[in-house]
Amino acid sequence: MKPWNKVAIVGVGLIGGSIGLALLRRNLVREVVGIGRSEANLETAQRLGAVTSATTQLPLGVSGADLVIVCTPVARIAQDVCQVAQAVGSECLITDAGSTKSDIVREIESAASAAGWKSGVRFVGSHPLAGSEKRGPENANAELFVNRTVIVTPAGNTKSTDIELLRNLWTGLGAKVVEMSPSQHDEIMATTSHVPHVVAAAMAAATPSELVRLTAGGWQDTTRIAGGDPDLWQQILLSNRDNVLRSLEQFEQRLGSLKQAVKNRQQQALQELLMEAKQTRDAVGS
Amino acid sequence: MKPWNKVAIVGVGLIGGSIGLALLRRNLVREVVGIGRSEANLETAQRLGAVTSATTQLPLGVSGADLVIVCTPVARIAQDVCQVAQAVGSECLITDAGSTKSDIVREIESAASAAGWKSGVRFVGSHPLAGSEKRGPENANAELFVNRTVIVTPAGNTKSTDIELLRNLWTGLGAKVVEMSPSQHDEIMATTSHVPHVVAAAMAAATPSELVRLTAGGWQDTTRIAGGDPDLWQQILLSNRDNVLRSLEQFEQRLGSLKQAVKNRQQQALQELLMEAKQTRDAVGS
Repeated sequence: MKPWNKVAIVGVGLIGGSIGLALLRRNLVREVVGIGRSEANLETAQRLGAVTSATTQLPLGVSGADLVIVCTPVARIAQDVCQVAQAVGSECLITDAGSTKSDIVREIESAASAAGWKSGVRFVGSHPLAGSEKRGPENANAELFVNRTVIVTPAGNTKSTDIELLRNLWTGLGAKVVEMSPSQHDEIMATTSHVPHVVAAAMAAATPSELVRLTAGGWQDTTRIAGGDPDLWQQILLSNRDNVLRSLEQFEQRLGSLKQAVKNRQQQALQELLMEAKQTRDAVGS
Repeated sequence: MKPWNKVAIVGVGLIGGSIGLALLRRNLVREVVGIGRSEANLETAQRLGAVTSATTQLPLGVSGADLVIVCTPVARIAQDVCQVAQAVGSECLITDAGSTKSDIVREIESAASAAGWKSGVRFVGSHPLAGSEKRGPENANAELFVNRTVIVTPAGNTKSTDIELLRNLWTGLGAKVVEMSPSQHDEIMATTSHVPHVVAAAMAAATPSELVRLTAGGWQDTTRIAGGDPDLWQQILLSNRDNVLRSLEQFEQRLGSLKQAVKNRQQQALQELLMEAKQTRDAVGS
């Protein structure tokens, strides 16, 4: 018997498409329904084998699913989860793939309490650290999660059996799972992902376009993620505003120290600051 | 007949080794002498075929050369060029591979005038935009310059025949050559190379080491060049101090605008700033 019977994926872009493809290729599911607003994306996903069927009607698509994965942009996740929750019973686990968590969990909990859903919503957040500046189901890749980290973020009322189900989902796709609270997730991601995006964007924007042809590998690496989708990223940054601002200040402090060392021609201090940075960087591979 | 008879390379690391290897593999030179202070590096270079002979004695090594390429760290280039100039006659062209230019040219010119060298030094600067966080002759690569840009920086007294010789050198190794003055070079490189290094270092240093395992491709790309050699980079940054400080301010302005948009929850403004960055970044490939 396969681990999952019917999985519904809401939002079949790069991430949603890759999840569907990986589940089907690894023979972990009987049926994957793709749910989206763009007929063209759904057709592409179906043609590439990322879903077995597709619909633009969310309640229809999620009906009878044992797992729903919401892979829409951050600002839409909470409302999509609530819409799913209204359509399915408590036999269905819901997760997402969003880059922030606290805002989403808060919004879902307050909607659940406003709607008077007795048992709350059976939602546990996920965040696969497998983003890309690429988009769309045409870039879906069944190996996208292999050796990547997926953060699973249980909230106060999450059942341990649901955490276990999510662990099995992601490890089944080849990923390592790390568990933490939604707020710890957001605090860490501000430093490891969101502020790097802001910095890469500032660097790209500060480069006059006529100089771009004189850039080399260094500039190109440093600015690569600035090619990401501006609409998705404004949602992420605003959803994690407080942590992003705090983490930006940490960055600005380090930048200020480096700047002062250059300004004051402090050779030794400058070299030490650069060495400290190198040691942190060298802790991961190239 | 080969374009060059004897080429001497002072400093046989990644760049010097790659030049020797490329010249010999492409059959552009009869003899390449490697000159350095580290016997081990020289032996590696010779074993890998990057030089045909090697010596730690600079005057001996450059004797009879028709081209000398100084590939030592930025802070040593000017004095090495002057030492070469003392040892060779005006039949020998001298160039370098340094990441800054104004300081070096200024120092060479003042040494030449102090020494009373009548015709000055036959030096024209080069900067191959082909750096790497890798080092040493063991990483030398005969294809390192293919499709890369090399900036050649004639000074006031440079002869057009010497520029032509350098153009042929670098295009012979597969590179595209762009010509500009030393000061224009330094101004541009501050933006396209030196400030990205400072920013990458600040980002790496601002990341607590226990979070490094939770980084993904974005952080890793953005900080990759922070793995570069701290001693080489403090030299580069201090040699180009004024331009680096000016260019850092441009970066800080952009960062400040992004920060304000996040702080004030200005969704539209934030998205526009990110879009502007994306457009600049998209002008080069991934």
